[in-house]
Amino acid sequence: MATVDATTETGKAAAPPAPAGNFSGADLSLRALLFAATLSGLVLLVTAKQTEIIPIALLPRLTFGPNDAKFQDSPALIYLLVALCVTCLYSLLTAVSSLRFVAGSVSTTKKLFLLLVLDVLYAAIMASATGSAGGVAWIGLKGNSHTRWNKICNIYGKFCRHIGGSAVVSLIASIILVLLAILNAYSLYHRSR
Amino acid sequence: MATVDATTETGKAAAPPAPAGNFSGADLSLRALLFAATLSGLVLLVTAKQTEIIPIALLPRLTFGPNDAKFQDSPALIYLLVALCVTCLYSLLTAVSSLRFVAGSVSTTKKLFLLLVLDVLYAAIMASATGSAGGVAWIGLKGNSHTRWNKICNIYGKFCRHIGGSAVVSLIASIILVLLAILNAYSLYHRSR
Repeated sequence: MATVDATTETGKAAAPPAPAGNFSGADLSLRALLFAATLSGLVLLVTAKQTEIIPIALLPRLTFGPNDAKFQDSPALIYLLVALCVTCLYSLLTAVSSLRFVAGSVSTTKKLFLLLVLDVLYAAIMASATGSAGGVAWIGLKGNSHTRWNKICNIYGKFCRHIGGSAVVSLIASIILVLLAILNAYSLYHRSR
Repeated sequence: MATVDATTETGKAAAPPAPAGNFSGADLSLRALLFAATLSGLVLLVTAKQTEIIPIALLPRLTFGPNDAKFQDSPALIYLLVALCVTCLYSLLTAVSSLRFVAGSVSTTKKLFLLLVLDVLYAAIMASATGSAGGVAWIGLKGNSHTRWNKICNIYGKFCRHIGGSAVVSLIASIILVLLAILNAYSLYHRSR
């Protein structure tokens, strides 16, 4: 037991001067959380499909027909799907890179800067996708009497719950990306003092 | 003339060691651009108002009535207005702070870090507002046959041009904010090397 302790102590001492070492643990856990959030958002979005028999007003008589609600019907939701896909992939790739940070093999300032730039870009992409999906989902939920856009969530309840859940998870992913950017910025600031 | 030259030379030499001095000029011009973009977006959004005499289907007969289109009718556009307002104010405040950077009186690393954090936050807010307004504007432009949301831009042409212009200018403002964050990150990275 004593030898093991000694080894870890030596390992600690032999590590390069890394005041940002304690941040890379937080970085890794945030990236794992981002992966979980984007993956669950993707699953919620892809499984949002509902078929309902609804009345179709065909004058002079009223007929009933099956009607599908699926995310492919809205460009905003397709954009959300693409944004969630690329962010999910990004979180996976950077988590691997973050793991190497924790292992202490690579820990350059340049890498921190590049990660910061990518985090800012992905945060902007996720925020805009969340905004557009949220804007459309709000119309689906509440409708808009001024433009006579009817609400659809009273008919497609399950579909709306899926889209709403996906939008909330995307909002969480955007917040995580902003936090990651701030963490990397702080890490860079810590090194430049 | 010679004395003036000498004074400026001395002024230059007496300035504190500021390798980031050349970035603060770019920072200031980007912030001025951001102010111009958000202000024009605000003006476009607030002046988006149009009254049209349109047919209202009141069975059994068709009547015609005046109908207003204004940005207050959509929560997404109200959110865009708020985001443009706060970003406009932010750009003005930070441009003043950036001016003091250029003058060389304050130029600490801490200030760079704080500006970077604020830039990232505002970029996320502007991107989400642009996304939600863009999503709603797209429905107004193209409609959605699946949910039977009719397009309104064939009736309210001038209103739609204003909203579209405001959304484009907001997109430009979001891109400027991302660029500002990257510039500040680079400045911080430059100091930490």
